[in-house]
Amino acid sequence: MKQKLGVLFVGALGSVATTVMSGALAIKKKLVPVRGLITESDFVKGVHYTPLSDIAFGGWDIRNRNLYEAAQQNATIPENILCCLWEEMQSIPVYQGIQVNVDDITKQVYGAFTTNIQESLYQAIQRIMEEIRCFKDEHNVDFTVVINVSSTEPMISRELYEWDLPFFESRIQENDFRIPPSISYAYAAIQSGCGFVNFTPSICMEVPALQELAIEKNALIAGKDGKTGQTLYKTVLAPMFKARQLKVNGWYSTNILGNHDGEILRNDKHARSKLESKSSGLKQILGYEDFDHVVRIDYYSPRGDHKEAWDNIDFEGWMGSPMSMKVNWIGSDSILAAPILLDMARLMDYAHRRGEKGIMSHLNMFFKSPYAPFGSQTEVDHDFFAQWVQFKEYLDQIVGREGES
Amino acid sequence: MKQKLGVLFVGALGSVATTVMSGALAIKKKLVPVRGLITESDFVKGVHYTPLSDIAFGGWDIRNRNLYEAAQQNATIPENILCCLWEEMQSIPVYQGIQVNVDDITKQVYGAFTTNIQESLYQAIQRIMEEIRCFKDEHNVDFTVVINVSSTEPMISRELYEWDLPFFESRIQENDFRIPPSISYAYAAIQSGCGFVNFTPSICMEVPALQELAIEKNALIAGKDGKTGQTLYKTVLAPMFKARQLKVNGWYSTNILGNHDGEILRNDKHARSKLESKSSGLKQILGYEDFDHVVRIDYYSPRGDHKEAWDNIDFEGWMGSPMSMKVNWIGSDSILAAPILLDMARLMDYAHRRGEKGIMSHLNMFFKSPYAPFGSQTEVDHDFFAQWVQFKEYLDQIVGREGES
Amino acid sequence: MKQKLGVLFVGALGSVATTVMSGALAIKKKLVPVRGLITESDFVKGVHYTPLSDIAFGGWDIRNRNLYEAAQQNATIPENILCCLWEEMQSIPVYQGIQVNVDDITKQVYGAFTTNIQESLYQAIQRIMEEIRCFKDEHNVDFTVVINVSSTEPMISRELYEWDLPFFESRIQENDFRIPPSISYAYAAIQSGCGFVNFTPSICMEVPALQELAIEKNALIAGKDGKTGQTLYKTVLAPMFKARQLKVNGWYSTNILGNHDGEILRNDKHARSKLESKSSGLKQILGYEDFDHVVRIDYYSPRGDHKEAWDNIDFEGWMGSPMSMKVNWIGSDSILAAPILLDMARLMDYAHRRGEKGIMSHLNMFFKSPYAPFGSQTEVDHDFFAQWVQFKEYLDQIVGREGES
Amino acid sequence: MKQKLGVLFVGALGSVATTVMSGALAIKKKLVPVRGLITESDFVKGVHYTPLSDIAFGGWDIRNRNLYEAAQQNATIPENILCCLWEEMQSIPVYQGIQVNVDDITKQVYGAFTTNIQESLYQAIQRIMEEIRCFKDEHNVDFTVVINVSSTEPMISRELYEWDLPFFESRIQENDFRIPPSISYAYAAIQSGCGFVNFTPSICMEVPALQELAIEKNALIAGKDGKTGQTLYKTVLAPMFKARQLKVNGWYSTNILGNHDGEILRNDKHARSKLESKSSGLKQILGYEDFDHVVRIDYYSPRGDHKEAWDNIDFEGWMGSPMSMKVNWIGSDSILAAPILLDMARLMDYAHRRGEKGIMSHLNMFFKSPYAPFGSQTEVDHDFFAQWVQFKEYLDQIVGREGES
Repeated sequence: MKQKLGVLFVGALGSVATTVMSGALAIKKKLVPVRGLITESDFVKGVHYTPLSDIAFGGWDIRNRNLYEAAQQNATIPENILCCLWEEMQSIPVYQGIQVNVDDITKQVYGAFTTNIQESLYQAIQRIMEEIRCFKDEHNVDFTVVINVSSTEPMISRELYEWDLPFFESRIQENDFRIPPSISYAYAAIQSGCGFVNFTPSICMEVPALQELAIEKNALIAGKDGKTGQTLYKTVLAPMFKARQLKVNGWYSTNILGNHDGEILRNDKHARSKLESKSSGLKQILGYEDFDHVVRIDYYSPRGDHKEAWDNIDFEGWMGSPMSMKVNWIGSDSILAAPILLDMARLMDYAHRRGEKGIMSHLNMFFKSPYAPFGSQTEVDHDFFAQWVQFKEYLDQIVGREGES
Repeated sequence: MKQKLGVLFVGALGSVATTVMSGALAIKKKLVPVRGLITESDFVKGVHYTPLSDIAFGGWDIRNRNLYEAAQQNATIPENILCCLWEEMQSIPVYQGIQVNVDDITKQVYGAFTTNIQESLYQAIQRIMEEIRCFKDEHNVDFTVVINVSSTEPMISRELYEWDLPFFESRIQENDFRIPPSISYAYAAIQSGCGFVNFTPSICMEVPALQELAIEKNALIAGKDGKTGQTLYKTVLAPMFKARQLKVNGWYSTNILGNHDGEILRNDKHARSKLESKSSGLKQILGYEDFDHVVRIDYYSPRGDHKEAWDNIDFEGWMGSPMSMKVNWIGSDSILAAPILLDMARLMDYAHRRGEKGIMSHLNMFFKSPYAPFGSQTEVDHDFFAQWVQFKEYLDQIVGREGES
Repeated sequence: MKQKLGVLFVGALGSVATTVMSGALAIKKKLVPVRGLITESDFVKGVHYTPLSDIAFGGWDIRNRNLYEAAQQNATIPENILCCLWEEMQSIPVYQGIQVNVDDITKQVYGAFTTNIQESLYQAIQRIMEEIRCFKDEHNVDFTVVINVSSTEPMISRELYEWDLPFFESRIQENDFRIPPSISYAYAAIQSGCGFVNFTPSICMEVPALQELAIEKNALIAGKDGKTGQTLYKTVLAPMFKARQLKVNGWYSTNILGNHDGEILRNDKHARSKLESKSSGLKQILGYEDFDHVVRIDYYSPRGDHKEAWDNIDFEGWMGSPMSMKVNWIGSDSILAAPILLDMARLMDYAHRRGEKGIMSHLNMFFKSPYAPFGSQTEVDHDFFAQWVQFKEYLDQIVGREGES
Repeated sequence: MKQKLGVLFVGALGSVATTVMSGALAIKKKLVPVRGLITESDFVKGVHYTPLSDIAFGGWDIRNRNLYEAAQQNATIPENILCCLWEEMQSIPVYQGIQVNVDDITKQVYGAFTTNIQESLYQAIQRIMEEIRCFKDEHNVDFTVVINVSSTEPMISRELYEWDLPFFESRIQENDFRIPPSISYAYAAIQSGCGFVNFTPSICMEVPALQELAIEKNALIAGKDGKTGQTLYKTVLAPMFKARQLKVNGWYSTNILGNHDGEILRNDKHARSKLESKSSGLKQILGYEDFDHVVRIDYYSPRGDHKEAWDNIDFEGWMGSPMSMKVNWIGSDSILAAPILLDMARLMDYAHRRGEKGIMSHLNMFFKSPYAPFGSQTEVDHDFFAQWVQFKEYLDQIVGREGES
């Protein structure tokens, strides 16, 4: 029996989503080499993932634009390759994003989108669930993963942390202004039996009502905030300083990027979620707190999606002698994120078939702020290599079990 | 019963050796903070190492200079701290280094050293062994580690790989010009029941005759070529690219340093040993060979011992998109090396008391080109984190065993 | 007749001032080499400046501390050199700084200074003038230069731009809270016949009342905001891009520093003056405005006075091809500023003897935001090499004239 | 009367030449913006240059390949632009390069080119001159500039410096193996009444016989070795250190590039010419010799024509305090060179019409090792801004004269 996998993006016209979709199509047509996919590497030998040709894509976006044109404008894929994918991209459905409770900054950055849909929060969520149903039917999909790749939202009201599921649902019906889109999509996805990945720093599965729902539905969850560039190498380098007992006194990290995400982050309220997510981890890895950790994100238009980072690390060696290390990373956010998302969709699909549920802790290595298992109070390990060992142990265990049967 | 540990350096007036000794004395006097010592960290809880105050130091050098003045000139320790250690440093013995078969470049760089010792190679080795005996007696030492921190030697003649131990010993008596000092010291150390650490890229334990001797004597051996700066972070970053399936297309590494080591490396014959040692590893970690790996070392006098490195890494992500990472490391060779040497001396002493023997593979993380166990043909893993796991497993095993007793 | 020169610092206990004074003393004692002084170079051959031994130092500070201890804490001069200067530094007078109208952030950063002086703004200014008189008498000084090196102040009230001199003076008597210390010192200095240098971004000579006074008093003025590090090399590199018609699309500049100046700049109101001063110039040099210029200053404690800067410049060449240049500058603010201040004091003294007056435009190369001549509306050239040519032409003219007489 | 200008490249299939030609065609078709051309900037207002549409291109190459395909492979111009230029590129003549006396390394790097032309050196030079005549006739060209952009040649035999013109010409007829292609082309160009630009480090106009010929023919000459990247910014930054009296102690410069030029430079004999050219200048600008200047060029294939450079500059400020500056330049050799070549061809054409002759010293700013005027022993100034002033003074003088008439 063929297992077809559906992947739906929140923010389907954004750079990350169009890069995943156009790249997957380009690989299928053998126009580009396979790069960045762990699920196509030796590491996962013996594990049978859904082939790329059996993955159906779609999503939502508040912008009212054509997917192909959005991909063109996002400019992460060469024009001469993109033009070969025109036909396939026409058949990917992009539904109208939730407009209820979208904050003003986001509205402003994403411009005058069509707001002729007049719907309450409850209606919007119902519509999302209906669209998931249709998508699954039309594409003959067994299991669907909803992935949030929309821009960072401001911090949420503290009250949401107090609400249980029934009260939360009553607030939906009351059109409560405190329930932001990310949480609404997560609710709709989990209610619909989908897996849910929060690739953004937006608050989402931290909310007890969503955790309650996820447990009730045996949902598979992964998040949050993709670890793709600066935080990736920081969690790789910090364990080196720790292992060698080189005392870190300061770590200055700056980022420049010129895409919509960067524009949104010019706003302090949005930046806070992001910076909080980026700042965590270092103290946990190093095991001490007496160092100066500064993280900066600056909007800088010449770069578009090509994020650039610069770090200066001050550390002390033998006899307290000062030394330093500087890193300059010239990457592309979407290029780095895209294969990870496909990997996660496939691994989640695989776990679903194996009957797993809850937080997928073996995917921690993909996140800046990995969710702890529901109910756990333990701090999650940010050390990339500890996370990598965890991932490989999960794979070994699977392959071992399968080997037995 | 008190266990006193002896540490003897080949190249005792060089920057690394004087930094170890003066730093250890400064820590004992609480003049500087304890940094860089894994044997003083939480990682080794439950393992009882020889305290710093029970370590006796000494060594050999071809330069005819006073230890204190050498430390001053090496300039790795602040003058105001060094001057507090004058008395203690007077009592550290520095014996006359082996002058037989020292190559011309080394003679030239280290200037006009006293050559009034007229001895054959055999006499020199006998003298070294006698000095080891005296040192042990005078300092009441149970176990001694001889550490080679002298400048890189040229590659050796291929014939030495053919000689068995008896023939090698006969060549010593014949004053064979092909037996370089590093090998002579190693021979003397192992014959004298010492542990031996080759912290340099010089050829040494690769020679079958020395392996034969080490096995016969149950000697503890570690090497080779300390992994302290550029190679350290390269073996930390490469596993990240591998884990994320980011294809490395090129890795350009340049180093500038202005100490005697750098001066020696201006000579192509010497540089070859070093560059070979620095180049290995990357292919093994990445698992492929189709990338351009360029490693450069340039003598640049303004820096003295403060080595600086710059790397450019070109890699490909999703759809073959090109990205790059640049690293600039501003370190000090001796500062980075010093604590590692103390760690190794203590760990070797500890292993000696536990009755271990042979290549200490759990110390691989300290070396650019770790020795494989005697007789083994397997390539040694260069991945720093794999090496770190190996080290921690060794510790866990020890503590476990001790816990039982 | 011997010409003795007096130099009085506003912020005499700060890092810049103590570095100037201790360095000048150390040079006199031949403890350090002469570096950074244009007035000691071949460029000024034939011009007779006051020798270092004929310069008397002093100043004001709101901190109630000893000068020698301040120099120790500022840590820009090695301890072993500083200790040789103890006696000379005891004889340098540091008067109590003006406390009227010091803003809250500055008070907070500089801690609990003695506030037992109860004086009105008018009394404070009278006291400053009295102290200038005493200093001149005691040190037998012909001409005195007052140099403002205190921390950046917040932007001033717009009203000050409307006041003429008589009204300004009446506001002093009314103890007006809108008159900040920088302006008060400038007023006192000019009234006392001193030259005045504003080495900070604080608003000062922009105020019409002070201009009126300066014209009336034939005062010599230079400013503002020392061009010592990042802005220096930016105004050197930008003309290259201009000359080669390489179109700059973006220039991202970040700074990290950990001294009190940095701490003050954590406050947005203070940072605004600084950032405005740092941002000017690039557009003027390049001759166009369509590029993204981002300037950041971040407080980062591990660095102390050793400011570090990183720039990324994106530019377009032939056919619009994108290229980039990155600069990493590891300097020390005070070390870079110190010789410039001595140069300016000597050049001002010299100009005074020659009967010059007004804005010293030939010193533009020393400033981030050079003052235009009084009354001029022309934008001042920020191109370092144009400024350098202007300086050399001034010198040539002087030497020429002197040659004639 | 219309003035048509001819430009003939030695190395016409190389990256620099194809970038010039395809870029000029693309600008004419308004496919790309005009960038990098000083002759299209405000600086040259009032000077009437030959419009791009009146420039005819051509050249020679030892590779037997089609120009369009060469441009494709050189990959400096986007495919979608290049394809619009197919027709125009077909009509550009590329003649067979001189194969006599091509050295072995060059032959090896440029592969098995057709060697069915059997000609002596004399015949080759006669052919080149004949091809210049044909080109001028066919394209109705008034004046032709021959530009050498071929790969760096090894150093020449010392004997050539001894030969006068008649003896040199007799050696041509004797097929002398010591006369390399660069010199042969220069001879043919000058004999044919062309202007000649040596954009490479190869030895050429240094040879007395060529100087003799150039004087006799009133030829216009410019060279040598284009200053486009690292040396450009070094001669911009060095004057800053000089002006500020910051003492440079060391300057380490490394370059990585992956094009044929880089491949040729892997050979020590070729690299010597290049490194000698790159190393000059710094001492002249700084005015002292006691600093360590290291220049490295490394072949590194991933970069192709996109040369990357890294510099570390160590300098001393006030009281001898050490500071450093690091530069990372990510450029493209051909993109940087292309507009300069067009500028020079137009400026040479203009000078020709004005009746100028000899070394065009106002173009010094375009060269790493500018030729001194024939007969002059004075060292040429390497300071970019001094050179820039010289260029502007030349322009001012021209425009002044024209303004008068």
